[in-house]
Parts: sequence; structure tokens; C-alpha cells
Amino acid sequence: MSTTDRELRVGMVGYAFMGAAHSQAWRTVNRVYDLPARARMALICGRDTGKVADAADRLGWDAYTTDWRDLISRDDIDVVDVCTPGDSHAEIALAALAAGKHVLCEKPLANTVAEARAMTAAADTARAAGVRSMCGFNYRRVPAVTMMRQLVADGRLGVIRHVRATYLQDWIVDPQFPLVWRLQKDRAGSGALGDIGAHIIDLTQFVTGQRITGVSAVTETFVKERPLPAGSSGLAASVDGSGSVDGNAPATGPVTVDDAAVFVARLDGGALATYEASRFATGRKNALRVEINGSLGSVVFDLERLNELEFYDATRPSVEQGFSRILVTEGEHPYMSAWWPPGHIIGYEHSFTHQMRDFIEAVATGADPAPSFADALQVQLVLDAVTRSAEIGSSWTEVQPALAAVAV
Amino acid sequence: MSTTDRELRVGMVGYAFMGAAHSQAWRTVNRVYDLPARARMALICGRDTGKVADAADRLGWDAYTTDWRDLISRDDIDVVDVCTPGDSHAEIALAALAAGKHVLCEKPLANTVAEARAMTAAADTARAAGVRSMCGFNYRRVPAVTMMRQLVADGRLGVIRHVRATYLQDWIVDPQFPLVWRLQKDRAGSGALGDIGAHIIDLTQFVTGQRITGVSAVTETFVKERPLPAGSSGLAASVDGSGSVDGNAPATGPVTVDDAAVFVARLDGGALATYEASRFATGRKNALRVEINGSLGSVVFDLERLNELEFYDATRPSVEQGFSRILVTEGEHPYMSAWWPPGHIIGYEHSFTHQMRDFIEAVATGADPAPSFADALQVQLVLDAVTRSAEIGSSWTEVQPALAAVAV
Amino acid sequence: MSTTDRELRVGMVGYAFMGAAHSQAWRTVNRVYDLPARARMALICGRDTGKVADAADRLGWDAYTTDWRDLISRDDIDVVDVCTPGDSHAEIALAALAAGKHVLCEKPLANTVAEARAMTAAADTARAAGVRSMCGFNYRRVPAVTMMRQLVADGRLGVIRHVRATYLQDWIVDPQFPLVWRLQKDRAGSGALGDIGAHIIDLTQFVTGQRITGVSAVTETFVKERPLPAGSSGLAASVDGSGSVDGNAPATGPVTVDDAAVFVARLDGGALATYEASRFATGRKNALRVEINGSLGSVVFDLERLNELEFYDATRPSVEQGFSRILVTEGEHPYMSAWWPPGHIIGYEHSFTHQMRDFIEAVATGADPAPSFADALQVQLVLDAVTRSAEIGSSWTEVQPALAAVAV
Amino acid sequence: MSTTDRELRVGMVGYAFMGAAHSQAWRTVNRVYDLPARARMALICGRDTGKVADAADRLGWDAYTTDWRDLISRDDIDVVDVCTPGDSHAEIALAALAAGKHVLCEKPLANTVAEARAMTAAADTARAAGVRSMCGFNYRRVPAVTMMRQLVADGRLGVIRHVRATYLQDWIVDPQFPLVWRLQKDRAGSGALGDIGAHIIDLTQFVTGQRITGVSAVTETFVKERPLPAGSSGLAASVDGSGSVDGNAPATGPVTVDDAAVFVARLDGGALATYEASRFATGRKNALRVEINGSLGSVVFDLERLNELEFYDATRPSVEQGFSRILVTEGEHPYMSAWWPPGHIIGYEHSFTHQMRDFIEAVATGADPAPSFADALQVQLVLDAVTRSAEIGSSWTEVQPALAAVAV
Repeated sequence: MSTTDRELRVGMVGYAFMGAAHSQAWRTVNRVYDLPARARMALICGRDTGKVADAADRLGWDAYTTDWRDLISRDDIDVVDVCTPGDSHAEIALAALAAGKHVLCEKPLANTVAEARAMTAAADTARAAGVRSMCGFNYRRVPAVTMMRQLVADGRLGVIRHVRATYLQDWIVDPQFPLVWRLQKDRAGSGALGDIGAHIIDLTQFVTGQRITGVSAVTETFVKERPLPAGSSGLAASVDGSGSVDGNAPATGPVTVDDAAVFVARLDGGALATYEASRFATGRKNALRVEINGSLGSVVFDLERLNELEFYDATRPSVEQGFSRILVTEGEHPYMSAWWPPGHIIGYEHSFTHQMRDFIEAVATGADPAPSFADALQVQLVLDAVTRSAEIGSSWTEVQPALAAVAV
Repeated sequence: MSTTDRELRVGMVGYAFMGAAHSQAWRTVNRVYDLPARARMALICGRDTGKVADAADRLGWDAYTTDWRDLISRDDIDVVDVCTPGDSHAEIALAALAAGKHVLCEKPLANTVAEARAMTAAADTARAAGVRSMCGFNYRRVPAVTMMRQLVADGRLGVIRHVRATYLQDWIVDPQFPLVWRLQKDRAGSGALGDIGAHIIDLTQFVTGQRITGVSAVTETFVKERPLPAGSSGLAASVDGSGSVDGNAPATGPVTVDDAAVFVARLDGGALATYEASRFATGRKNALRVEINGSLGSVVFDLERLNELEFYDATRPSVEQGFSRILVTEGEHPYMSAWWPPGHIIGYEHSFTHQMRDFIEAVATGADPAPSFADALQVQLVLDAVTRSAEIGSSWTEVQPALAAVAV
Repeated sequence: MSTTDRELRVGMVGYAFMGAAHSQAWRTVNRVYDLPARARMALICGRDTGKVADAADRLGWDAYTTDWRDLISRDDIDVVDVCTPGDSHAEIALAALAAGKHVLCEKPLANTVAEARAMTAAADTARAAGVRSMCGFNYRRVPAVTMMRQLVADGRLGVIRHVRATYLQDWIVDPQFPLVWRLQKDRAGSGALGDIGAHIIDLTQFVTGQRITGVSAVTETFVKERPLPAGSSGLAASVDGSGSVDGNAPATGPVTVDDAAVFVARLDGGALATYEASRFATGRKNALRVEINGSLGSVVFDLERLNELEFYDATRPSVEQGFSRILVTEGEHPYMSAWWPPGHIIGYEHSFTHQMRDFIEAVATGADPAPSFADALQVQLVLDAVTRSAEIGSSWTEVQPALAAVAV
Repeated sequence: MSTTDRELRVGMVGYAFMGAAHSQAWRTVNRVYDLPARARMALICGRDTGKVADAADRLGWDAYTTDWRDLISRDDIDVVDVCTPGDSHAEIALAALAAGKHVLCEKPLANTVAEARAMTAAADTARAAGVRSMCGFNYRRVPAVTMMRQLVADGRLGVIRHVRATYLQDWIVDPQFPLVWRLQKDRAGSGALGDIGAHIIDLTQFVTGQRITGVSAVTETFVKERPLPAGSSGLAASVDGSGSVDGNAPATGPVTVDDAAVFVARLDGGALATYEASRFATGRKNALRVEINGSLGSVVFDLERLNELEFYDATRPSVEQGFSRILVTEGEHPYMSAWWPPGHIIGYEHSFTHQMRDFIEAVATGADPAPSFADALQVQLVLDAVTRSAEIGSSWTEVQPALAAVAV
């Protein structure tokens, strides 16, 4: 750590899966990177007193509160880290920005385009006052993903022709898996689409430097009714037996989000793309896979093997061309100088550590971190186009511009 | 070989890539399988006398002719094997059936739905007279593919939720690759769609036992103008320098087929499917890959590793679940009892050997081989739906029924 | 974290690669596991005041000292964590045990069998007084490795026939890589053999539950003279240009350890084993790979993909047998309940986190952690047998018993 | 096929596994390669009249005989192809050479060094008379293997440091698998060592261009007694129930060959090598795997994926280094111009087709094919050194020179 005494006092809202992952990152980031400021895990917020007190103790936060408005109003908080379900992102982030706090907000930015637009506008206003904001598309900071972007930016792939992105999981294949909040539209906004589809939308736009301009989509809910849960936290849940009337038929409720979303897209650089997000891909646990084909080369990435990147360089002698499995663990690879010797792999959690690194650096040096709320709004606009296309028989649907035309 | 003296005298039309592959299969099939009839490589047909004479000698055919009508009219030919480009399939196959010859016709069955309907009708008529017909979707006979179908049929995958099929090649990424017949609509019917997309349509319908009912599609031609070739054969070609006026600007012509086709589909059993066929996937040489996810398991197949099948069995103890890489080289695996000891892999060509095995057996025993022309018509109807959907802004497009409704 | 207030105050000696890895583990362990005691990162020790002060600040230790005797003599230290090169393990560990401190000592336990015997004896004595000791063979705590052991222990592999273990790196392939301490026998004891060979010896004995009884070995030093370094730390170093007399010929010194060691071994359960440790395997960064074949099944592990385990179950139906790639990221897998959802991989560093977890639990509950110093002595005895065999023309050499016969 | 009328009339002795594989190759070779002579499958020889008659019919040989001496004595045979078990190689090959026949002899060349020396001497004598001889180490002709050799020869790997070769199978893991001829020393010479170990000895010497100079070895027979077979052919066999006296205890016999052989070796170019051949590696069907590490790069080959080669080029930019999976299916790759378009894989059998191609070309053009009997003798000398080392407690054992010193 540098000799700096500057501290960034973080207040985090939420303590489930994302809260735990963010805590591990805040705890680690200054231990491995030499940064112009130190994060202090100052305050954690959750609605249930017992649970948040326990989380504060377990995860290592100095204090806790049960009221996010309290968190935002405190003078000793510099950064608000929003790790709640999507339905509260807008309210919390808007209040935090208004209070002059730097904001790191989990993805998807919001549950609706309208919310995302409002948040983006607020972020723009706040920026003028030196307040920073960032959306947590953490996979951009997987070293292999950052390296993919560099290869594309350096022209190593030539003209991009194809993007092929899937994000596959299987945690709700069992029809008896309960109706957790991620399966409820009012809480989660959408299902696989916003939860994991948003990741591959952002990642592919980030890597290619191109934006999706239009889509043709289909969404599906395979299991339309599920048992009500006793309670849920993160991705785990158990069926509430007590919801049953007679011990045989537990109470059920409708699944109001998509189980799977697939769409074809065009990017503004001319590429043709396919996307698939599903929670019904048996055997696929966290299979974010991206392949990009260009006129001069191709890259392939698989989040389950996140320390590896496959790169095909079509400018090499033809008899030697092949997909090279690069272990992205060298000190020269993005973010990796801080870690272990080559071949000693890092885990999923450090996509967040790297994110916190860049966020702290941006805040401390007065720069704007990326992805901005505007970037995240663009993802939201794609999600919106997908939803609309699916509603009108998959007809081609343009992604709305981020800056809405002014009505005359 | 059995003690049978029954011979099936084969006449093959075409001698390029498919002709060579079929020859290797006809030559081999009775050497490894004990069948009720022996194929005799009696006659090969091509338009160029010198070339077809050379092909006959090199590939091992008893005789040659330059007129396919001659081939069909001969009494000493029992089977007509159609290996020409798609624009002549209908004419040759219809004539052959009318002449009472058993017909094996390469895929896609035809260049248009109308042709495919006529061929199917003719096949139905001929069947009544004991004449057999089959379309050459050879990948059904890759042992791992046959095994996938058996797993599905045995209920090992449960309810099919997802089909994910790609067939990727890269042989025309270079804009200077010439305008061979496969890039001309009047010869080939379509581009990647009919050439390789047809394979994954048939394969996935075969494996799942389900039919595609509707699609939403996009097609693309990335390189719209290419140099005219000096001549072309199979997948190889060279640019005709003499087409240039001043030595700098070779004559070019328009590419009239798709370079890539992507579509989302629904299957009649409820599965959601994605398909992609492209000749612009740099680094992918013959990458037919299929993944099928069901409620009880998943399978994955890759034609570049055609002796392997990945199978995920979700009924196993949860801590031991994983994709098993099955080497489909055991004597108990489909078609494999005739080959080498376990672990000694077979090549692409034997998908044809197995096809010939089943064709010979069906003809000799008076059974109908599959896929029938009707099966191939169904693929043609999907190709047609894809083309129509792409023309109307990707709007959802139903696959027409094979039996057209009678107009009143 | 539990409600316990019990604290284990840790004093760590060394702050290079292992020091950083251990720090990350001490920092993390109580944040993810609920344990009967909390580790406190109390004191770090190193010889260079400036560097150790910086390390204390960067890695997050409460205080620092430059004298390990001071560290051991303090009353407010409960645990001594020895992360120095092998030549000081014995002296520090013996003093720490004598002072009643629990000791965690990095591997290999010592540079000689004599030292290891003395340490084991001291650990036995200390155990009677409730003092715990453990050797840091951290790879035992990779979840997939722990799972391999369970599969063997459960009889899933049947009778073990073959062990095939390699640990390959390539960081000294370049003859200009300098003569760091790891290449000096007086500091490191041996080269690839003790550094990485020790890991695969321990790991395979741990997994199989069998001990190596004899070996036939070859060792090799490919590059016998190297430039002297300006200084070295961990695995990194730079050549000291100032060592050169005339600017052209830098001072060099002899490499006194092995670059590679290969040996054949027999295990006491009847298995035949091969081992290879090398720093000259170009392209292999941290390739610890182990395959074990038994009469009923096989397992394969690769440290570069440490979240995966391949398991072949020969009791399944023969047509479905194959190596299953198990993602060892389920909550039911060893150590994984504390981490992320399935498919979200963990990194190398958590082999240490899991080690600290088990160490803390053992100390807090008064149990003996494994691997004990006696276990580590057994590894040392194998290293010794390898060295002796290599010196006598690879002749078969028995591993000495841990308990030396008493001379009369 | 060229316009040549020159025919090479082949007489093959043996019709089991190797006989079938050779037949497929003889049948195919002139159909895919344009060669200066045509092979004619003239005569097949086996001891059992019924079986050899059937084999002639099934495999497509013009005629058959039950006496190999008859085969050799005929004027209308140019080439003798020896596919029998090892105990008859010497007698047949010596007689054939004496009769002026070109000889292709399966590997291992013989069952003893003495036989191999006699055969080599005879081949040298015959060469002077224009008679050609070759030993069937067919894996040299796998395109990826040939390419490995070229990479090494071109200096792309730099100085070879390590060779790591395994050939693993599992067909006798079951103790009830019967005592087939391959498990009898008097028929087979040795077990895994000569059968599959010989392949990796030849292959690695071929690829590296280096010879093994000494070894330290261990061999093992895990199952020492097995049921007597009813009969055996190739790799398949069934237990002879009639060998049982009372229906419960079938007659058994001793296994007189090794089940597994492992050895460390040094090559004359300075490389350190490990070899393992086993028939007890559960789950490994035909796993010939070779990795070679040099100062500038590495290569990896796996026979179960024989169309692929992994190549690591350490001269590339460090951040892009990785093992490239090269699909060795391009027309520019060794032997591949005759086959299918890129990505369409070939099978195991074509290692023989390529072998026949080179043999025919050498015979027709009056050149000496490789590997010569002298090359095969060198492999035999390594097998002999392995056996001797295993007998003397693994002590380092020099490989005898091919030209034995004259005793005074």
C-alpha cells in the first residue's frame, strides 16, 4: 500500500451473494494493489437487524444500519455500493448521487429503461460536481476479457464478422425449485435476460467496441408455476413446506420472468451476433461463453475457465494456425502483476477486486470510471428491445437511442 | 462378406468432393460389414470426358459415361447415386425413379421446395413399385450422433429444453476467394444455409425426434462481389487471372447466396433452439457442434472430434455429475463392431460407409431407408421458412406442412 | 464468524511469495468460514526493516519485527507461521515449538532428513503439551484433491494400479535467468525436486492413502552456470548487471540444484508410479497433473484447472463410460459451501485459506492437524531416496523408515 | 492414379486385426494417391483354410493359401506383408528376403535382439540386390506426428530437454480376461512393452531425431494367472468355459509377459525422457500421448485425437504464448492433400494407408523406405535394455550398439 492516508469510506447496501463478493473485493483490493486511496469497509446496510449485524461481523464491516437513507445521509461515507435486487437500484442510487456520494451500482442498472435514463441523467449532473458513478459489470475486469478487448482494439481480429455469446446455468431445471425473488418480475425486472443476459450484452459490446443496433428475440418460461419459498437469499432457497395446506400441496405462485432468452442481433460495425441466456441448460453451471470471429482472427472465452483465452491468429503460417490456449496469468497480462506466479490461477471473486481497483483509482484521481451509467443504460435499451421483439413475434426491433429525441 | 451373390450395381453422377467420398464408402462398405448384397462400382458419370475417365480410373469405377440419361437408361444399373450440385438433383432423381432405379441423393434434396415436393411425390409412387430412395444426410450415421438419438429416445435427457447447433467454416473469409458454384444461387440454391445449415437442421431433428415448427431468421452476405474463378471443383478453386482486362482488375461477379444464416426456432416438443451456419468463422474448419439440454441430462457433439460424445447425466449423485467424454469406439457403439479396437478412431468418410451399409441393407431386404425424401423435404421446408423470415425482418415464420392443404 | 472471542494471534516469518499467499488466507479465512477462533494477523517478521515495514502495511499485519527470535519470545503470539526458505525452517520451528507456539511450517519441511527428524521429534514432544504443528502442503486442500482422496477412500477406484504425477514449470528455461536462492542447494536444499516434486509426492500419498516404498531416479541440471542476481524475492529476479567486470561478462555462479527430477516408484498398496518435476517444460506454467488408475476407475487432476476433476467410473454401463469433467464448485463439494454459487471458480490462493481453516479448527478444538511433521518427514525420506538413487545409477532405493531402528 | 501399368503384387501373411487394417490400406492407397505403381491384393495366407478363405473373400484378396512358404515361393508375388504375431516374423521375413521379395514387416520387428540382428543383416544383403524392407511403425505416418518431426528438424523446438511418452490401454484390467497370445511370452515376446511401448520408443526417436542411449526400468505383471481362452484373434477373446473341470473353476495359465513397463531414459541429444506402457490404465483406450519440451517450444500429441497437434511457440510475444491446437487437416499438412477439405478428420487406419504410400513409392523408385529393419533393430535394443534394467533392480542400463563389437 502506498503512503497515502486518503481513505474512501464505503457504505454497502445488501449482504447476500453480491454483498459477500463485494466484501471480499473491498477487503482485498488495497492488499494487492498500490492505489492512491484506501477503501474502508465502514458501514453495511440491510433491513433485518439480526441478519445485517451478523453480516457486518462475518464480512468485516465496521458498523451496520437497517436504513439505507441513514447510510446515505451520513457524512462519514464517501462511496455507496448498491448490491440490492434491481427494484431498489434507482431509488438508492438517485438518493446517493443527490447526496454527493460516489456510487457503484450492481447490474443490471435498473429494472426499466425509464429508471436507467433517470439514473444516467443524475449521474451526468453529479459528475459536474466531481461525483463518480459506475455500474458493476464485473466481467469486464476478468483479465482474459480485458485482453480480448485489447486484441480487438489492436486490430488483431480485423473486421468483426460474428459474435456468439451464451450464458447458461441450470439452477432452476427442477420444477420444485421455489419461486425466489429472481423469478419475480416486480423484484428482478426480468429473468435470465436481465440477470445473465445483461452480462453478455455488456461484455460483447465492451470487447468489440461495437453497439447492438437491433434484435430479433424469443423468450420462454418453461415452468410457469413454482412452490412459494420460505425465504430466499442470493441464489439459494428452500421450499417452504409450511406453505402447504394439507402437507401435500404446497402453495405455488406464477413465475413472471423468462427462464430463457435467445436473440439474434446486429452490431454497428457490421457483425452478426447470437445471444442466449438460460437457466435451463442442464450441466452448465456458470457457462458464460463468448466467441468472436474476425477477418484476421478469433477469440474464445469461457467463464468456467476464466484464466484462459483461446486466440486464433489467421496471419500466422497456415500450417501452424490453431486456437492457442493462453493462460492469462502472466505478470504482463491485465491486472495480473499483483497476483501469483504464472499458472497459479485466480478465482471469480477477483473480477470484483479488479473492479474496485479501477473504481478507487478513478475516484481518487478524479476520473470517470467505466462502465458509466450511460453504458449501462445502453445495455438496458438492448434488454428492452429484446423484450419488445419477443412480444411482437420476433420481428426485428431497433434498439432505442440513449439520447431520446427531443419532442418539438 | 456373406456368401450372397446378389450385387447392387451402382451408377454415380458426379466425381468431385462428394463423388470421392462416396467412392471410398462404396469401395469399403462390403469389406467391413456382412450385408445381404454387394455394391458394385459399375458406372460413373460426368460431363467432361477426360476428367470422368480419369476419375473412373482413380476412384475405381468399372466404366464411365458423360451422359446421366445414359446411366439411367441402362439395364445393368440398380442404384443411382446423385452427387451433383443441387440444381440438377430433381431432374436426375425424378428420371432415375421413373426408370425404376433405387436412388441415393445428396443433400440438400433440392434447391426449392417445389422440386423437393415433386421428388417426394415421385419417391412415394416409386415405393409402391419396390423402388427405394434416400437422402444423404450422412452425419446421422456418425456413431456418436446415432448414440445421441438413442439416449434421447431412451428418455435419458428427459424433456428437451434447448437445442444449440452451429456449423461453422471459414473457407471464404478471404474476399479474394473466387466465385465458385457454391456461391451462386442458381447452382447451389443457397449458401451456408443449404450447404451446412441443412445438416444441422436434419441432425437435430433426427436426434431429438422433434420437428422445427417455426423460425425467426437473419441471413447475411458479408462479401458481395468476388473474382470469377477459372474453374472450380468441390470446395477448392483458384482465381482466373485471365478474367482481368489489364492484369490488375480481375473480372468479378456478385455473390448471390448467404455467407451466414442464423435463426431461432421452436420444436414441436417444446424445445427452444438456435442455429447458426457460417463460412466466415475464422479458425473453424468443419465445426458442426450440437448441444442438447433436457430436464434429465445433456449431450454435446463436435464433428471435428467425431469419435467423442459428451453426456451429462443429471440423475447421478450430484457431486459426481459432469460432462463425460465418451469415446464412441467400443464394439457395442452404433456401427463400431466392424471397425478397430477401442480408442482407434475412425474418420469423416465412414459416415458415408455407414450410410451405404444401411442403404444396401434396406434395398436388399425391401425396407425403406431413412432419411426418406419426405424427411429431406421437411428440411427443405425449414430452409424455406428461414429464407422467408429473413426477408420479412425476422418475423416469426411457420414451417409449412409437408402435405400442403388442398385449396378448395 | 461465530460469536467466539477467542483469538489466535499469528506471527509470520517471511513476506515474499508464500508470505503474500498466507496473508491473503489469514485475512480471508474467518470471513468465509464460521470457526471456533479468529486469526489475528499480529506480527510479521523479516530481516530488512524497510521491506518488512512495507510488507506489514501492504499485507495488513498489526506490527513487524526484524528478529524471528523476538517474534517467538513474545507472549502475545499463539501461532508461528514459517514462510522462509528451507534452510531456516528447522531452526525457527524448533525454537517456536520449544516456546510453546503452534507452528505452521511451509513445505518442504526441511532441507535434510536429519532436520526433519529433529522437527518431528520436537513436534511429538510439543504435542504432549497441547502444542500443534502442521506442514503446509496446501494442495491437499484444493477441493478436487480432497474429493479424489474421498473417492479412493470410498473404494470407487478399486485396487490402485498406476499413479502418474508431473509438476512442470518453465521459469528457468532461459539460461540467462539468474541464480536465485531457489537454485542454490545451501538455501533451497534441492531444486525442482524439493520445491515442486515434494508437492506431488505428498499429494499422491495423501490421495491414495499409500506410501512410496522405493524409487529409481534420475536428476538433471541442464544449465549448470547462471548469472548472479542483484537480488531475488520469491520466483522473480533480475540479473545484476553490476556483477559484470567489463560490461560484457556478468559474474556467474554454479547451479547447485536439479533442474528436473524423474523417478519411478512403488507404493505400499501395490501401485506402480511415475513422478516428474521440472522447471524446463516450456509452456507449462504450473502444471501439477496427477492421474490415478484403479481396477474400478480413474481420476485426473490438473492444477491449472483446479476447479475441475475428471472421474472415470468403470462400473457404469460400458457404452456410457467416459472421463467426467466434474466442476468441483457445488456446495456439497469439500470446502465449497463457503464460497460462490456453482460454476463460479475459486483461485489457487484458497488452497491456503482452506489450510488455515483446518489449522485454526484443529488448534481451537485441541486436535492434531494434518499433514503432521511426521507426514512431512515421510516426504523428506522420499526426496532423500530419490537423491540417493540418482547418485548410484538409478538403482532401486528403498525409502528409509520414519522411525529409524535404534542402533545397539 | 497415374497411367502406369506397373503392379506390385502383394502377399499378406495374417488376417486378424493387423491383417484387416493392412487390407483397408492396400485397398485404398492407390485410390487417393497418384503413385508410380499399383498395389494388387493378390494373395492372403493363414493356417486355417476356412478362416483364410473367408478373410480373402471379405477383405478382398484375389486368392488365399494356408502355407506361407507357398506364398513366398510364388513368382507372381512381389511384396510380402508380414502381419503375424512376433514369434514368426523372423522366419517369414528371412525367407521372403532370401526369395527376393520386398518385405513389409509389422512391429516389433522380432521377439529377440538376435532375431532382429539376423533380419537386419539379411535386409542389408537383400538391399544390394534391389530388395526393399520396412518395419511397420505406422504411427510415423500420422500427419500430426510427421509434422512434429518437421518442427523439430526445423529447429522450432530448440534444444530438446524433455520427452514424456505414454501409451495406455485398459483391455486386460479385468482379471477374468483370458490368456490370449498377446499375454504369452513365447508368442508375443513381451507384453505392453513390445506391443505398445515399442511404438512410443520408435515415435519419439523418429520425432526428435535422437536415439535412446540408456534406461532405468521397472516392469510389472499385476494379474499373474488368467483363464485359458477358447481361442483368440486380434485383441478380442472369450473365456473357454470348457476348460473348466467342474463348471466352476476354469483352467488357468500363467501370464508370462508384463502388464506395464515404465522407464526413464536419456537421449543422445541430451534430453531426459520418461516412458510408460500399460494395459491397466482404466479408461484409457488407445492413449498414446507424447509431449516434447525444447528450449524454444513444445509439442503435444494424443493418438485418440490424431488429427490434432498442440504446438507451443516460445518465440511468440510472451502474452500471446499458449498451446495452439492445430487441426492437421489442411492440404499443406503431411499426407493430407489427398484427403478431404479442412476439418474433415481421418481415422487411425490411414496411418497404414500413408505407410503403404511411402512403401510403394520407395519400391517403385528404387529407394529405401523408412523405418528400415536397422531402425527397428534399434527399437529392439531399447526393449532389450528395458528388460535387462528391470531384471537388475532398475540400474542404469546402456542400450547396446546396433553393430555389436566383434569378440576377440
